[in-house]
Amino acid sequence: MFTLTADDQAILDTVQQFAHEEIEPYALDWDQRKHFPVDVLRRAATLGMGAICVREDVGGSGLTRLDSVRIFEHLAHGCPTIAAYVSIHNMVASMIDTYGTEAQRRDWLPPLATMDSLASYCLTEPNSGSDAAALTTSARRDGDELVINGVKQFISGAGVSSTYVVMARTGGAGPHGISAVLVPGSAAGLSFGANETKMGWNAMPTRQVMFDNVRVPATNILGGENNGFRIAMNGLNGGRLNIAACSLGGAQAALDKAVHYVNERSAFGQKLSQRETVQSTIAGMRIDLEASRSILWRAAEALDDDSKDKIALCAMAKSFVTEAGFRVADEALQLHGGYGYLADYGIEKIVRDLRVHKILEGTNEIMRMVVARSTLNVT
Amino acid sequence: MFTLTADDQAILDTVQQFAHEEIEPYALDWDQRKHFPVDVLRRAATLGMGAICVREDVGGSGLTRLDSVRIFEHLAHGCPTIAAYVSIHNMVASMIDTYGTEAQRRDWLPPLATMDSLASYCLTEPNSGSDAAALTTSARRDGDELVINGVKQFISGAGVSSTYVVMARTGGAGPHGISAVLVPGSAAGLSFGANETKMGWNAMPTRQVMFDNVRVPATNILGGENNGFRIAMNGLNGGRLNIAACSLGGAQAALDKAVHYVNERSAFGQKLSQRETVQSTIAGMRIDLEASRSILWRAAEALDDDSKDKIALCAMAKSFVTEAGFRVADEALQLHGGYGYLADYGIEKIVRDLRVHKILEGTNEIMRMVVARSTLNVT
Amino acid sequence: MFTLTADDQAILDTVQQFAHEEIEPYALDWDQRKHFPVDVLRRAATLGMGAICVREDVGGSGLTRLDSVRIFEHLAHGCPTIAAYVSIHNMVASMIDTYGTEAQRRDWLPPLATMDSLASYCLTEPNSGSDAAALTTSARRDGDELVINGVKQFISGAGVSSTYVVMARTGGAGPHGISAVLVPGSAAGLSFGANETKMGWNAMPTRQVMFDNVRVPATNILGGENNGFRIAMNGLNGGRLNIAACSLGGAQAALDKAVHYVNERSAFGQKLSQRETVQSTIAGMRIDLEASRSILWRAAEALDDDSKDKIALCAMAKSFVTEAGFRVADEALQLHGGYGYLADYGIEKIVRDLRVHKILEGTNEIMRMVVARSTLNVT
Amino acid sequence: MFTLTADDQAILDTVQQFAHEEIEPYALDWDQRKHFPVDVLRRAATLGMGAICVREDVGGSGLTRLDSVRIFEHLAHGCPTIAAYVSIHNMVASMIDTYGTEAQRRDWLPPLATMDSLASYCLTEPNSGSDAAALTTSARRDGDELVINGVKQFISGAGVSSTYVVMARTGGAGPHGISAVLVPGSAAGLSFGANETKMGWNAMPTRQVMFDNVRVPATNILGGENNGFRIAMNGLNGGRLNIAACSLGGAQAALDKAVHYVNERSAFGQKLSQRETVQSTIAGMRIDLEASRSILWRAAEALDDDSKDKIALCAMAKSFVTEAGFRVADEALQLHGGYGYLADYGIEKIVRDLRVHKILEGTNEIMRMVVARSTLNVT
Repeated sequence: MFTLTADDQAILDTVQQFAHEEIEPYALDWDQRKHFPVDVLRRAATLGMGAICVREDVGGSGLTRLDSVRIFEHLAHGCPTIAAYVSIHNMVASMIDTYGTEAQRRDWLPPLATMDSLASYCLTEPNSGSDAAALTTSARRDGDELVINGVKQFISGAGVSSTYVVMARTGGAGPHGISAVLVPGSAAGLSFGANETKMGWNAMPTRQVMFDNVRVPATNILGGENNGFRIAMNGLNGGRLNIAACSLGGAQAALDKAVHYVNERSAFGQKLSQRETVQSTIAGMRIDLEASRSILWRAAEALDDDSKDKIALCAMAKSFVTEAGFRVADEALQLHGGYGYLADYGIEKIVRDLRVHKILEGTNEIMRMVVARSTLNVT
Repeated sequence: MFTLTADDQAILDTVQQFAHEEIEPYALDWDQRKHFPVDVLRRAATLGMGAICVREDVGGSGLTRLDSVRIFEHLAHGCPTIAAYVSIHNMVASMIDTYGTEAQRRDWLPPLATMDSLASYCLTEPNSGSDAAALTTSARRDGDELVINGVKQFISGAGVSSTYVVMARTGGAGPHGISAVLVPGSAAGLSFGANETKMGWNAMPTRQVMFDNVRVPATNILGGENNGFRIAMNGLNGGRLNIAACSLGGAQAALDKAVHYVNERSAFGQKLSQRETVQSTIAGMRIDLEASRSILWRAAEALDDDSKDKIALCAMAKSFVTEAGFRVADEALQLHGGYGYLADYGIEKIVRDLRVHKILEGTNEIMRMVVARSTLNVT
Repeated sequence: MFTLTADDQAILDTVQQFAHEEIEPYALDWDQRKHFPVDVLRRAATLGMGAICVREDVGGSGLTRLDSVRIFEHLAHGCPTIAAYVSIHNMVASMIDTYGTEAQRRDWLPPLATMDSLASYCLTEPNSGSDAAALTTSARRDGDELVINGVKQFISGAGVSSTYVVMARTGGAGPHGISAVLVPGSAAGLSFGANETKMGWNAMPTRQVMFDNVRVPATNILGGENNGFRIAMNGLNGGRLNIAACSLGGAQAALDKAVHYVNERSAFGQKLSQRETVQSTIAGMRIDLEASRSILWRAAEALDDDSKDKIALCAMAKSFVTEAGFRVADEALQLHGGYGYLADYGIEKIVRDLRVHKILEGTNEIMRMVVARSTLNVT
Repeated sequence: MFTLTADDQAILDTVQQFAHEEIEPYALDWDQRKHFPVDVLRRAATLGMGAICVREDVGGSGLTRLDSVRIFEHLAHGCPTIAAYVSIHNMVASMIDTYGTEAQRRDWLPPLATMDSLASYCLTEPNSGSDAAALTTSARRDGDELVINGVKQFISGAGVSSTYVVMARTGGAGPHGISAVLVPGSAAGLSFGANETKMGWNAMPTRQVMFDNVRVPATNILGGENNGFRIAMNGLNGGRLNIAACSLGGAQAALDKAVHYVNERSAFGQKLSQRETVQSTIAGMRIDLEASRSILWRAAEALDDDSKDKIALCAMAKSFVTEAGFRVADEALQLHGGYGYLADYGIEKIVRDLRVHKILEGTNEIMRMVVARSTLNVT
């Protein structure tokens, strides 16, 4: 499984070249200007990255989860933020592909596949982060329509996206009263907060999304009424793998920069790479990333195979890889000394970008609770 | 790759049952009495564990490295020390299978496959541990014979084994003047030090091996004169994986005991398993072990495929898994509170046993140097 | 405060010499034979170590907690187990000095000060470890007597000690129904379990203590009826500091051995001490121990001054120092390579001994809960 | 020593109030606008913070190193970057006070004490970071003048400061050919690079300083010709303590914010502070910071007492406290979940600010080498 086929390699070479030529040279500038490069995303889509695991009849690439994590690793090598946004977009596309009716698939997926329409995943609210089931955004039925009210927080792509999958309460309290609703960006009553000032992830907008009597057809419910929490959680399995893959790619880029730096830079009359402490650090970083890659591929295989421990493995991979990725990026910064602290070297940006991966799509503390539940006699 | 076939599973079920029934109930007693259960080893050999990766024509099981690491994990679940000795025995058998002439294979391997003859690997000396190439044991040619003089240190199985593969200097200083020599336990001039008092690994003897003008036929050289260092190092690739597998199995046993304990034990009016800090610890242990298993299987696949990064991957797996395994066993001890410190619970023995895995077959510090050399422009 | 006076130094020189001459040369043998050297303890008492913080009128040394932690560090340099037992003995002596009536002080303390009578602290029970307030040993009043029934677990010195301070239930459930009762070793109905087989701490006996209608005068209650839990907890403040001091001394001995070893041992053509990775490790160990010493002295000063954050500081010091001490000892083992795993070098014994300090007198997990309660709005 | 006198407390109350009222409310804005608040610095100087350890005859506050670390902790509670700049300014002032002639002291220190003149410390060069003795900036004597040429890198305050202490080569290669030279900001031939784009420390400018035939009187040498490296290194002892104190204060602010947050925020039907995992994390953070404070105060006392292990202790404190401080700030971010990643909460700024403390005034890797040299038989 760890040996790539020629086809696998061809796909990854394409992604790598795209990341290297069309993303990496601009990533720092996008970070500093807080620029969301929609044009570049659409070029990525022409290579098949808009709907990686979506079936081909609606424009998807029909690839596996294992393909997907390899692709996101390579994309993130150019910029973790861009890759992370694409991963969120893909999570939404895959949810529609998996849970949507044929009509929903035909209506919503083709423009997502080309990224003419960008997607946002609206789960978190100001007062419900880790405790997602406590959400209060409501979708009240009114005839053939749903009327949505509430506020979503930390929504990636918000304001630019045309497709919002919104978890809203259509039933009673708790996880069983939630539905996933498709909301177009053009809906009346939809508005957006200011673009947040964040530590990193600056190349994508993060905004509140406000719903003020937003009306959509009741047929916009995805996967059946009151099934939304299950859909949201299932969608997160793949999302977690992809975010982990983005950490892996970003951290690998940081390690590559560090290897280059210590091979070139001298101090005390020798190359840094000749120092044993530096060698030991570099080795530790590589070990961390190869272990990350191994568990990530394994979890992706489990998801592809619908293995019974897939949820736990996705949570393990997300937690392990995003922890290791941040640590490796931070060590790469340290190896650069003062230069690592300067924006020009591109390392500190990776550190800032990867920091949020330990938090989103389920904090790593929540990941541990997920793993514990599958290991212990607890609920 | 992470999905086992029915055949794979059948092999592992056999090993698991053997470990569970014939090893685990006695492991603590063997530790305390420093008893080396040769009879049990021979029963393991009847199940094919004496020469796992050796070709079938001489009694081997003809399995892969990937099979091997899975087998050693399950065997170590019963007792890491027993499994570790079997792994050393197998390392020697595989070296003879790989580098031996047909005559050597036919002469030496059948009794190793049945474990009628046990094997010891004689590389380390009192003054050359990590710096193996500095060894001074000499094998001087005298007509058709080699005359061996010197002392080997930390030799597992010494005094009981009938087969010794001895790295001895047949040429100049450094790695290029070393040969691997087959020495029977019955050779005149061969003697053994006292069984060392150790922190753990008590169910196998560890002794110095002294060579005082020990004579063997010159045809006992394995793989060609002065090729010994390369053979020793190549043999260690598989040896490192298997030791890592022993750490994994021991640590998994410790985690299983901890899961059982916290599911049963109550404090402050609730099961320990209900406490979030306990859940978080258990989850972290499991994540560590699944990452360990993933990188271990990956490295084994690389060795089976003769992948170009096999040496680095074996070193990474050895370092990562033996570090994680010790840490997990230590956390399992802590979860048991005071009971973990008592021999009866079997946890402290695992901690003591796994501690040496961070040191032997190349310390983890040396592993990092191996990884660094494959990553940086250094030699 | 960190500068010692000439008097301070004189005391410590005496302790150091005693540890160096009368303990260290024999410590390994005592460990292996499970020998409790009562004669050596009594010689320690002649130097004032039997009742360090006890007032002088009953034979105590009248020293401070700050003196005490310095003394235990130096004593543990010879053997952590011996020092740890002396620290437990002193905890009991200090409890009697602090909470005892004049009659109790006069009766019980002089033989404790000379260690003609050894002391054991009986709090933990088989089913109440961290949750000490759940203890079920009962002390029922019968006329002028108390009748004690129950079982205590993990009791250091049990079977040899003549003085037992026993926490027993004299009232209702929970912490407010417990009294501290003085029980002589000669009491009828008192019996002892087998000496436990433990990972370390082998130079002191650890046994269950069984109370079968043990009768003592009701005047043997210490500090007032139903005040026992408070007394037990207060006694633990000093006990925790002293156990931490024992970790510090043991770890310092391990560091000293490692420094000696790497200054002498060569590999790859240079002293180990010339290798940067070794230097970095040694430096990290020393930093850990100096930080340990600093917070330990600070907590001792807080206890001497009856500072309002003394409980939190004692818990912090216990947790920090015992974690650091174990880690440093383990790193010292690793620096010794294979030799560290052999008993002869004395390192693996320190690792085994210090392991239990993370568990006893409140696990480090409980220490964190104590610290949290003093930091957060929780109870 | 850990008990503050009323005088100590009065000083710290003043600093605390200043930090709370005049710095903290503006710190985030200064970070985002990259604003260096010279007016606020001058108000700090009116409270005595411009020349804390400088003798009073030239306007200094005449306080000790121990006072100094306490002051910087409290100042950094408002903003680590502002405190860090003040600490660099003070390092320069103390160097002039210690090594300057009476004339130099009278000329340069009064405006530094009032911060009418700000100071920059010019040691690092583009090609000599950790290996400071390799610097190539030259100060060639020409009659009664020195002619300075070269480039300094990462100079805090550059472009705004009026006082530059420049390490320049007046003799042969290596540490013994370096002098410390006082250069006024108005000197002809002095120019500055662009303000660097950094991860943090945005409220102070960091620029290259270029010397193009800059001429100063030869009497501007501080502490004797070719004594500069020794002076630079000695100055760093106090500088390292103060930077450590800035980490401590910043991290304490992060912990305080986290305590406030978890006491207020609810999830899963309870306050976050009720969750044991949160309690354990908070406790660990506090333990880290109290250990940091303890070793920092200890090192400061050693510096005040001119203790023989002062260099090692300052290096230990710098390394330990800046590592712990960054870790604690990062944990505080994680406790805030997604909100921690937003600038508004002030946590991510602390993380970014404290990151560089592990690098500057000697990286923590260099600190370990300093400690190793005082521990091992190495040079």
